[in-house]
Order: sequence, then structure tokens, then C-alpha cells
Amino acid sequence: MGYAALEARYRELGDLGHVSAMLNWDEAVMMPVGGGEARAQAMATLSALIHREVVSADTGAWLSQAQAQDDLDAWQAANVREIARERTRAMALSESLVRERTSVAARCEQIWRSARPTSDWAAVVAPLAKLLDLTRETAQRLGDATAMAPYDALLDMYQPGISCAQIDPVFADLREFLPPLIETVLVRRAAPLPLPGPFPRAQQEALGRELMSRIGFDFAHGRLDVSHHPFCGGAPEDTRITTRYDEAEFLPSLMAVLHETGHALYEQGLPKAWRNLPVGEAAGMAVHESQSLLMEMQVCRSREFLQFAAPIIAAHLGGAHANEAAWQADNLYLGSTQVRRGLIRVDADEVTYPLHVILRYEFEQALLGGELQVVDIPDAWDQKMRATLGRATGSNHRDGCMQDVHWFAGLFGYFPCYTLGAVMAAQFFAAAQQKHGAIVAGVSRGDFAPLLNWLRENVHGRGRLVAPEQLLIDATGATLGTAAFKAHLTQRYLNA
Amino acid sequence: MGYAALEARYRELGDLGHVSAMLNWDEAVMMPVGGGEARAQAMATLSALIHREVVSADTGAWLSQAQAQDDLDAWQAANVREIARERTRAMALSESLVRERTSVAARCEQIWRSARPTSDWAAVVAPLAKLLDLTRETAQRLGDATAMAPYDALLDMYQPGISCAQIDPVFADLREFLPPLIETVLVRRAAPLPLPGPFPRAQQEALGRELMSRIGFDFAHGRLDVSHHPFCGGAPEDTRITTRYDEAEFLPSLMAVLHETGHALYEQGLPKAWRNLPVGEAAGMAVHESQSLLMEMQVCRSREFLQFAAPIIAAHLGGAHANEAAWQADNLYLGSTQVRRGLIRVDADEVTYPLHVILRYEFEQALLGGELQVVDIPDAWDQKMRATLGRATGSNHRDGCMQDVHWFAGLFGYFPCYTLGAVMAAQFFAAAQQKHGAIVAGVSRGDFAPLLNWLRENVHGRGRLVAPEQLLIDATGATLGTAAFKAHLTQRYLNA
Repeated sequence: MGYAALEARYRELGDLGHVSAMLNWDEAVMMPVGGGEARAQAMATLSALIHREVVSADTGAWLSQAQAQDDLDAWQAANVREIARERTRAMALSESLVRERTSVAARCEQIWRSARPTSDWAAVVAPLAKLLDLTRETAQRLGDATAMAPYDALLDMYQPGISCAQIDPVFADLREFLPPLIETVLVRRAAPLPLPGPFPRAQQEALGRELMSRIGFDFAHGRLDVSHHPFCGGAPEDTRITTRYDEAEFLPSLMAVLHETGHALYEQGLPKAWRNLPVGEAAGMAVHESQSLLMEMQVCRSREFLQFAAPIIAAHLGGAHANEAAWQADNLYLGSTQVRRGLIRVDADEVTYPLHVILRYEFEQALLGGELQVVDIPDAWDQKMRATLGRATGSNHRDGCMQDVHWFAGLFGYFPCYTLGAVMAAQFFAAAQQKHGAIVAGVSRGDFAPLLNWLRENVHGRGRLVAPEQLLIDATGATLGTAAFKAHLTQRYLNA
Repeated sequence: MGYAALEARYRELGDLGHVSAMLNWDEAVMMPVGGGEARAQAMATLSALIHREVVSADTGAWLSQAQAQDDLDAWQAANVREIARERTRAMALSESLVRERTSVAARCEQIWRSARPTSDWAAVVAPLAKLLDLTRETAQRLGDATAMAPYDALLDMYQPGISCAQIDPVFADLREFLPPLIETVLVRRAAPLPLPGPFPRAQQEALGRELMSRIGFDFAHGRLDVSHHPFCGGAPEDTRITTRYDEAEFLPSLMAVLHETGHALYEQGLPKAWRNLPVGEAAGMAVHESQSLLMEMQVCRSREFLQFAAPIIAAHLGGAHANEAAWQADNLYLGSTQVRRGLIRVDADEVTYPLHVILRYEFEQALLGGELQVVDIPDAWDQKMRATLGRATGSNHRDGCMQDVHWFAGLFGYFPCYTLGAVMAAQFFAAAQQKHGAIVAGVSRGDFAPLLNWLRENVHGRGRLVAPEQLLIDATGATLGTAAFKAHLTQRYLNA
């Protein structure tokens, strides 16, 4: 009885989530710049309304009743668990704090968007400092309510169940393992034959669409568009991915499409019966990232995938050169697995990428803890980049501390998900391959059904039925560990 | 005190209105077909939430307090008047009726969208009948609450203050005036020199954007896109118009752009201080249509506008023929003022258009009153089209009773706004010209400031400060009448 009312309330909240997701997509892909202020205001009101319904007394009463019910099935019980978790966190925050943080974050992101092209750090200092204050207050309140340290409370917002205690050993391991690997790879790795452009945008898009369809993206329930940064947004019934095109180079854009396709397949594969309810959502952003990275890094940058894809890529983009060696699988594989110490996280290869994330993880802890002030970020960034990747940024903030949207959108605590996702992706894919030899063989001839079936069964279709740790154990037989990831990198970059 | 709380509540409701407007635009322009069901559900929840807040006890208490306040300025008092009007109407409806009608309308529209291309009338009968039932119930309840006849209560939803009592004499007058005018024009009007296509879509779009900018559309606060039917959506800060392109013919698309630009200028010119509040909204859909038709029919199909625009049009589309007579103002004017008895309302010229609307007005009254059943619409349509415009539709429902989205979206009572808008447009433009000789002179050299200033001052910037009847009187010195419209048609089609 309590459960039925609670579920109805959360279906309504799920509708508001659908609305928010669509408007977020619209803001990044469609909105004219002058629409920003009204949009920030509308998003703040939506977040306030959602908060108001979550913390309302009747939601609380129905939740208590549902928690006492013994007639719930496993999905319903998991739904109640997720709702309780979400409500505890919401109860820790006032509506005015939620509204203000949403609105300040939206405006800060808009200011960042126009300031970044000219590295105009001065323009973002004040809004970012304000946003950090509000985030610190949010983290403190969430931490108090859940008996977590403030930064752990933020991490838990994006990937439930994850804390520094689990991240630290993983990151420490990678911090030790990666630098010597990078050194070796930089010496050994051959350069690919150049691929002669230009590659008209329309042709790149047609290629992306063809490969998306082949892999399993459902265009009746989704779109491909262009935005400043590639992302996957929307809802399971209407999943919208984006990329950006550079007519001189097609691999970065194509790999972004394939990466976002991994995210999209997760969304499109979430359990249909539990749509719009917490238990029907993805298991967290690290798990989400594991799906995009499994698709991009484990599958699409593999020699097997490129054996299948090379003729398709060449047909779309190779023109008169399509039969030359540059357009064959071996060379595309070499091009897809280059390693370099770059400034930009989103352009980084899978070997250097974790170092970009670890750097941000350390920044976030210092910012949250008050040991680092916003105004000091650029200098600290320059120093850390020199120390970590041997690259200085100086006053090139655009490619330094202003490169990522996350902090300017208030997403402190999100970055670790990228590397946790990479680690999980390797672990998932190793387990899948072990159980089904047909997966890689399928990929090499463009048959993605064995792979997709495994993912649907072991990840996508489970939503939040079990805790993320359990999801990983059920699928792979082990808790989170770096072994598969390190084995994958060693195999691809040293042994192959 | 009551007023301040009431205004805060309505700013929040205004945000939800912004959200709804954006999602409506998205549905027509962006949404993949499979997203329809989730979207309909989300829109229904939004409408239910808005209804819930409007009818809530605290909204009622604040409204009563505000109505008793004597310290309100004219805008605040008008805001209270509009809120009271809206609340009376909302109180007449249950949340479940609002939710069901929104959701059934959204689904019915989606079904119509896929059924129309094949004239599949059978697919829409049941959903349309269901929607008509819900609309009839809505009309009855609204009528009871406002002491109006049910159909008047629907008319009042789109254009406050308008009823059959005012529409009937206007339509009777036109029904008498137009047929002989059409006969004469069809005999007399010369055909234009043909304009050789094809006209690539990108070039048509560039032309549309240039003329939009020249007229005053603010692209920092708006967009131009493509949809099945041209429309103007979004919000004042983010006004989104659409058109559709036919590469064989550019005038219909261009005129649609200019028409929607008229709507957009109204939105972008609404009073900034009252954004997101009822008093800051447009004065009604007939007044809105007067602004699009003033721009399209009075201004952009005039010889003066085409004198300015011809070289721009020719530069974008004329290619090697740009200097030939076909691309000169005189021929473009002839092409823009052709009259024919067609099947399609949206393709109709300004002389035959009112007959399309009058036909629909009669249908709506018969459908609401129960004298006509949904299943009998196609035969009745065929008969009425023969009688009114001498054209049979037979089983060509696509271009017959399935041509318009309105009924399938639940918008019964909307159609009269088009012709009331045409009549008002002529009345506004005649008054503007009389007071400012500079307006037409400005248009002929591409200076739209005198026109836009007059519109901003007399229409756009006034929002809902005064009742629509009063807005018309203040701007033109007269109540609604057909004199200016008939004079305009006579001048353009018989005397020129």
C-alpha cells in the first residue's frame, strides 16, 4: 500500500528527471547563448520541485510503510532501498541550497563556456569560488547525514558505494604502474601512416551513424548531434549522444561516437519494466563509464573491431585512397592506439588518461578541504602537470585548468568515475571473453549480438537491482581490482 | 504581502511553462519517434504539477489577499486579474482530467503524425474521438465555471475575451465579401514569370536568416530550424521558429519564415520586467496571429518590402539569372500575391484563407455540440470543401481533414484566431501607417525600426496589461472590425 503510493510518486519524479535530462541536452546542443539565464532559472525551479517532493511528509510516510512491507519482490525492495538512500541525502539539504547550487552552477557553466576560448580565468574565479562554497556546504551536510567524509559524500553522489578508501589503492597502483609503461611505449610504439584529409563533416557523420547502427544503437529511440564536448544525454527511450567534428582528423570524433554509443547502449538497455524509477536507473557513473570505455577502449580500438570496420571507414572517408595501406586495419589500429603526454584529458589515450584523472582527484580533495583556494588553481595546475605528465600549461588555461566543464558545472567528485570505469571495463570485458569466446570473434565480423547479450544480461538489464560492488562480483567473480586493466594495457602496448 | 507570495509562486509556474514550451519544440523538431510515449507521460506530469500548484490552497489564499490589496500598481493589478482568470479555469478541472487530456492529446498527435502521410484515417478515429470526449468534458466544466457556452470557453482559452457573439458577425461579413472578390481576382490576376529552381536548402536558409536579422529577430535569443509544420515556440529569451524547405519553390518557405518572425518579434518584445508572469505574456493567440500576419501579409508581401528584399533574394537564389525580370520586385510581388482555391489551409493565400478557417469553425461547433461524430468527419469535409471552395477531397484525407495538427493535438477553438488575427493585423497596420508615414518608407529601404518601435509600444511591450479589446482600441482607436482588412484586400487585389 505504502509501496504503491511511493512508486507512483517516484514515477512522477522520474518524469521530472526526463524533463531535466532533455533540457540539459538542449542547453549543450541547441540553446542560443541569450537563453542561459532563463534556462538556469527553470532548471533551478525543477530541482527545487524535485527536492520538495522527495522530502515531503507523504513521501516519508509511504517510504516508512514500504520499508515495513514484507510482500515486495526483489526489484521492489531494491527500489525502496534506492529511494531511501536518495531521500536521506535530500533530507540533508534545504530546498534553497539545492535551488541556489543548481542556479549558480548553470550560470557558472555558461560563463565558463564563453570565457574558455580566450583562457579568461579572471571571468570564472568569482562564480567558481561561489559554486565551490555551495558545494562544500552540500558535501558537509551530506556527509553529516550519511556518516561519510564530505568528499566521500560527493563521490557517492555519482557512484554509490565508492569512497576514497577504495579509490586510493587503485589510484596508487596506477600511479606506480603507468609512468614506466608510458616511457616504454613512447620509445617502442611505431607511428601510423598518415591518413590524408580533409574529411567532410557529413561523411564523418554518415560513418558514425553506420557504425552506431551496426553496434546496436536504436535510432528510433535516440539521436546523434554535435556539441562542444561529446556526451550522452536524454533518457532510455530517447538517448542522445553528441560528438564534434574536425575535418582534418576523423579518429577522435569517431572514437567519441563509439564511446558515447557505449553509454547509450547502457541507457537503451536498462530494464523496461522499471523505467522512470530509481531501481531502473544505471548503477552509477563509474559503471556508466565502464560501458562507454568497454565499447571504445576494449572493443573499438581493438585489432578485431578494426578488421571489421576498416573497409567501412575507408568506404566513407578514403576516397581514391581507400585501398591503400593507410586505410587497412593494421594502420587504423596503430592510429587508434597511439600514446602521448598531452595537455587535454578528453584527447588522452587510455594509458595516460588515468594520470589526468588522478591529478584532478588530488585537486578536488585539496579544494574541498580548503587547502587550495580557487584563485590559486592555475599555478597549482601548471606545477602538477609538469610533475605528472611533464607538460607545462602556463597561462594557457583553456587547455589547462579551464579545459573541463565539471568544476564549472559543480560536478566535484565526478572525475574518479572515469578511471574507475576504465578499470571496471577491463574487468568486465575479460570476464565476458572468458565465458564467451564468441564475443571477440563476433566483433571481428561485425556481429555484436554476443557482446550486447552479455552486457544486457550482466549489466544493462540489472539497473540498480543489486549494489554496484555486487554487480561487479556477479558479472566478473571479483571485487574491483586493477589486474585486468593492467593486463589489457600490457598486452596491447607491450606484447602486441 | 499576499501579492509577493503569489508572484513568487507564479514565477515558479512560469519556469514550468518555459520547460513545457521547450519540450514542445523539441518534440516537433528533434525527438526520435520512439521517444513519444515517455514524452507524453512527462508532459502530462508537468501539466498536472502546474495544475496542482495553481489550484492549491495557498495559491488561493495569496490570491484573495492580493485581490484585497490597494497598494498594487497597474501591472501588478493586471497580473492579479490574469492569475484570477487562470485559477478560476483551473479550479473547474480536476488534475486527473488535465493529466489525461494532455497525455491523450500528445499520443493522438503522435499517431496523427505517422498516419497522415498515407491518409490513414482509420488509425486516428479512436484516439481523436477519445480526445474530443475529454475536450467536451473540459469545455463543459470551463463553461460552467465561467458562465460561458462550452465552445466559448474553449475560444477563451486561446484568445481571452473572444466568443462566438463577436466572431459570428466578422465571419458572416467575410463569407459574403470574399467569394465575389475571389471570382474577380482569379479572372484578373496575372501569373508571375516562372522562377527557375532548384533552390538548395542551405541557400534558402541563409536567405531566411538574413531577412530575419534585418527585420529585427535576435539570434542571441532564438533559433531557426526545420519542422513538419512551421511554428514559433520556446520562450521570450529563447524564441524558436521553424520552417520547411521545398527545393523546387522558395516563396512558401520564405514567407513561413517571415510569418514566424512576426510571432517571434512579439515574444522577444514582451515586457522584460514581467517575464514568466501571466501579465507578461502575449495577449492571446488571435493577437499573436495578428503579429505574424502583419509581418507576413501586410509587410512582407507588399511591393515596398519586395523592393528592398528583391536584390537580397536574387543574390541568394537567383544565380546567373539574378538580373532577369523574374527576380525583380514586381515579379516577386506578383508571385507573393497569387490567389487560388486550394485544399490546404497553410498554403492558402490571404484571400481564400478565411474560408478555410470558417469551415473549421463550423466543424468545431458541430463536433463540440455533438451534431457531428468523429467518424463522419471525412464525408462532411468533402461536402463542405465542395460548397466553400469548390474543391473535393474524397479519400485524400492527408490534404483534407487530416491536414492540420490542431484537432489531433486537442486544440479545438484555436482556428478562429487565424482569421481574427488577419483582421486585427490589417487594423493595426492601417493605424500604424496613419500615425507614422515613415513606416512604409522605412520598409521599402530595409529600415524596420519605425515599424518595430510602433509594435513594441502599442502591442509587444504591453503584454496583458490591458484586456485584448482595450489593446486594440488603444492602438487603433476602434474595436475589432473588418473595414481595414477588406480595404487592404480590395487595394491589393483589385486596385493595384
